[in-house]
Amino acid sequence: MAKGITSQTLQRLPMYFNYLISLPESKQNGHISATAIAEALGLNDVQVRKDLASVSSGGRPKIGYCTAELISDIGQFLGFENHDGVVVAGMGNFGKAMLEHKGFAEYGFDILCGFDCDERIIGTEIAGRKIYHISEMSEFCHEHNVDIGIITVPEKSAQEVCTIMTDAGIRYILNFAPIHLNVPRGVIVHNENISLTLAMLARTSGMIIE
Amino acid sequence: MAKGITSQTLQRLPMYFNYLISLPESKQNGHISATAIAEALGLNDVQVRKDLASVSSGGRPKIGYCTAELISDIGQFLGFENHDGVVVAGMGNFGKAMLEHKGFAEYGFDILCGFDCDERIIGTEIAGRKIYHISEMSEFCHEHNVDIGIITVPEKSAQEVCTIMTDAGIRYILNFAPIHLNVPRGVIVHNENISLTLAMLARTSGMIIE
Repeated sequence: MAKGITSQTLQRLPMYFNYLISLPESKQNGHISATAIAEALGLNDVQVRKDLASVSSGGRPKIGYCTAELISDIGQFLGFENHDGVVVAGMGNFGKAMLEHKGFAEYGFDILCGFDCDERIIGTEIAGRKIYHISEMSEFCHEHNVDIGIITVPEKSAQEVCTIMTDAGIRYILNFAPIHLNVPRGVIVHNENISLTLAMLARTSGMIIE
Repeated sequence: MAKGITSQTLQRLPMYFNYLISLPESKQNGHISATAIAEALGLNDVQVRKDLASVSSGGRPKIGYCTAELISDIGQFLGFENHDGVVVAGMGNFGKAMLEHKGFAEYGFDILCGFDCDERIIGTEIAGRKIYHISEMSEFCHEHNVDIGIITVPEKSAQEVCTIMTDAGIRYILNFAPIHLNVPRGVIVHNENISLTLAMLARTSGMIIE
């Protein structure tokens, strides 16, 4: 699908999408140039032009892209027009924040429900999403064809929950627990380690002279 | 300070640190080889060896590094032995999760307090941290020399809060609101856009053939 597209381009496409949909209505109805996008995101404009040309044919010299068209082209390419179900394991504050987070829909993600093992909240709803017992995950994921999961459980139970997820058919895992998860071949994990992110921001970004 | 060290190396150092401190006590008291670290993190071992050699002289052929010494060397280089105060603006679930998150201390970060504008929670405590009114941020940050802030307020108030932070002397901002923040020169923002991360994980990582 991504024939002739480098991983660097693929990594940048969602950022372009993210920037374009964050523009005010008025601008979304107009045109935008690769140069303007490059400036806004602090990227090289030749690179941005190449990236956009690889997924959209709508670019016009001197005029740029019809913004709405470009949003649609990138979204289509990345599958943002799909509706992929996502489940969240761990109903602490992070988990609750995930269920309440509104930004997912624009990217074609539906947060379907939450899982926990605290009997007191099983069966309740958070932001309109039902909380199930972790033991029900396999049945739920297979029934709803879910292959994306978010782990927001404490460190000590993260690996166990991760194994339950992969057994349930989850192939993409966004992990907020600060541990390295062992997963079967073919499962992709993204570790969202907030401490690490903060460390990179406040400790190394200052050192980098670019 | 980072003379002769590439930004790639700098970006990887916190990951090594993160991996080493996540090892069981028994292993932390022993030795570890660059090869073992490379395997665990799925990196090239020549690269890892180079990275580690740039911050620690403790590597011995066939024996590897004394793990505790390596942790200390990397931590020292990255300033993880400092104690830098961090403030959090926005006491929704994300903000609460930040105040409760235990992982920050190992990286030398002290989450000092939270800020909000909801009078009902001003003066209360979350995880032992006091909640102040957002209008008190400037005074607090100057008094405690804080230059790191985390933004967990809703999108609509993020820019306003960001400006309050930078006026208060904050130079490093971890932003969870899904908008692009305009900051003065010299202020570094890291946007933690969960939707974008999930999109990159579930939509583009599958396309990348590496």
